[in-house]
Amino acid sequence: MRILVIGGAGMVGRKLIERLAKEGRLGGTPITALTAHDVVAPARIEAPFPIETRVSDISVPGEAEALIADRPDIIFHLAAIVSGEAEADFEKGYRINLDGTRYLFDAVRAVEGYVPRLVFTSSLAVFGAPYPETPIEDDFFLTPLTSYGTQKAMGELLLADYSRRGFFDGIGIRLPTICVRPGKPNKAASGFFSGIIREPLAGQEAILPVSEDVVHWHASPRAAVGFLIHAATLDTAPLGARRSLSMPGTAASVGEQIEALRKVAGDKVVARIRREPDPVVAKIVNGWPRTFNPERSTALGFKAESSFEEIIRIHIADELGGKIVD
Amino acid sequence: MRILVIGGAGMVGRKLIERLAKEGRLGGTPITALTAHDVVAPARIEAPFPIETRVSDISVPGEAEALIADRPDIIFHLAAIVSGEAEADFEKGYRINLDGTRYLFDAVRAVEGYVPRLVFTSSLAVFGAPYPETPIEDDFFLTPLTSYGTQKAMGELLLADYSRRGFFDGIGIRLPTICVRPGKPNKAASGFFSGIIREPLAGQEAILPVSEDVVHWHASPRAAVGFLIHAATLDTAPLGARRSLSMPGTAASVGEQIEALRKVAGDKVVARIRREPDPVVAKIVNGWPRTFNPERSTALGFKAESSFEEIIRIHIADELGGKIVD
Repeated sequence: MRILVIGGAGMVGRKLIERLAKEGRLGGTPITALTAHDVVAPARIEAPFPIETRVSDISVPGEAEALIADRPDIIFHLAAIVSGEAEADFEKGYRINLDGTRYLFDAVRAVEGYVPRLVFTSSLAVFGAPYPETPIEDDFFLTPLTSYGTQKAMGELLLADYSRRGFFDGIGIRLPTICVRPGKPNKAASGFFSGIIREPLAGQEAILPVSEDVVHWHASPRAAVGFLIHAATLDTAPLGARRSLSMPGTAASVGEQIEALRKVAGDKVVARIRREPDPVVAKIVNGWPRTFNPERSTALGFKAESSFEEIIRIHIADELGGKIVD
Repeated sequence: MRILVIGGAGMVGRKLIERLAKEGRLGGTPITALTAHDVVAPARIEAPFPIETRVSDISVPGEAEALIADRPDIIFHLAAIVSGEAEADFEKGYRINLDGTRYLFDAVRAVEGYVPRLVFTSSLAVFGAPYPETPIEDDFFLTPLTSYGTQKAMGELLLADYSRRGFFDGIGIRLPTICVRPGKPNKAASGFFSGIIREPLAGQEAILPVSEDVVHWHASPRAAVGFLIHAATLDTAPLGARRSLSMPGTAASVGEQIEALRKVAGDKVVARIRREPDPVVAKIVNGWPRTFNPERSTALGFKAESSFEEIIRIHIADELGGKIVD
């Protein structure tokens, strides 16, 4: 089985490749080769199969064709300009997130008899306020309030149409906000959700730009990788024409996040969170969904954490070697 | 006030221009110039203002820029490859319906300080089965089952994002199936809904490819022109970020259509309908929505007919000079 990971240098892409390397197989089938693609060089990862890294811009015509030249059986399309940057740079967002995705889909379409599984990472940003008071159901309509969310929603529509036409076997997974993101902050407006856990645990100050009553939908990087692997191997027949799914997650208010951090790491760690309201971030976040009722993905076997405390403990185990800076 | 009609040679485009020509003004403001664009030459229409006709392909880069060179205050974007053809010719459908639309939107975006009203005609084809048993509400999700519906849904998403960004003041109107379409059948799979009324009234045989219990959502060409004119002039502030609206219409089963025809024109006319089931058409039509509860558009003042009989009488008045071939 050959695998292509587009966006392989990103946090989720790297963790996906690490897990595939560790397991050596996907859905019971041995992996024979993997290509890790990104606009910057993906990290070298040791694996029981050859990993080719490839650096290029998927929005350059011809690049997608080159990427699928060896006909990967599974394509993970994780590459995207994140929400904050897509909002700041209108043209770049559309070029990468919409055109890049379409070039990839069209490259696959152009190869007769080639029908790979294509896992597309979408986002909760396909939804926008106003929301019902109740959790968001699977049939809630696409109402993005950012260019990033618009581009992801358009990708979902293409994914469904190309799958219906039989050009590939697509599945879109709307990732919750990934928390706790390791490493440095990226340009996503959602970055503080991770920052207020990650920085204090590492002995550093974190800035909280919104109020504590902001509720959001989270899953750990470990859960996100689990979603991708499950999406790559499940039977897509039950999806019908509706190829994109909201993933399960854990709803938590910022206040509940902080209390979970206090329980796991104590007052001294929590004291490193500094309130500094940012109306721009608050406005973006207010347009985001809070909680979901992801019946379809749950019925299909996707699994997330059951509490925010569990999310913090996974971060400490996977990223900090079990150690907290007290 | 300068007006641009893209898709001006189509049936709805021509009727829109005829009405604007007759009234000489739009929303109380005199029309000073109108450009009628299409891929084939729009018909010559006499008007109290100059009408320029322009023939080109909007999916050719640079053409959209030329079309808006005189900065029309109102742009009606009606051009599209219809559902049957977009399904038969995948690339042409995406090129015209998606790329053409995006070229237009980007051409407007590129002109600093230019924020026209842009009326985009979308379609019920943005929705796809399975549906609830109840009428489709305004917050039903985008679930197209055709490439045409996918392209229209993507256009709606772009329209909302470009409007949110302030590049233009967009409004999308999802037209019911227009009935009775005058003239010859086009390639739309919905063509028979008009055919079974139009042909019998003109003394000709019509083919009915689906069963009589098929329910669908209709509005007359006259109502469609009314929607466009209302969309061009209403206050868009109440739309918020949700820029596309399902239009009001008349729900009727094919059986009810036939009985309305019998009431208006008699048994002899109805006898010209020949049943010839076509499973391909039946399958497409089964994916279409049946009835709507278009609260938003109704509250905003959009109006359709109150019965299918009224739709038939409008056809006889507007197209047949009041005369039926008995």
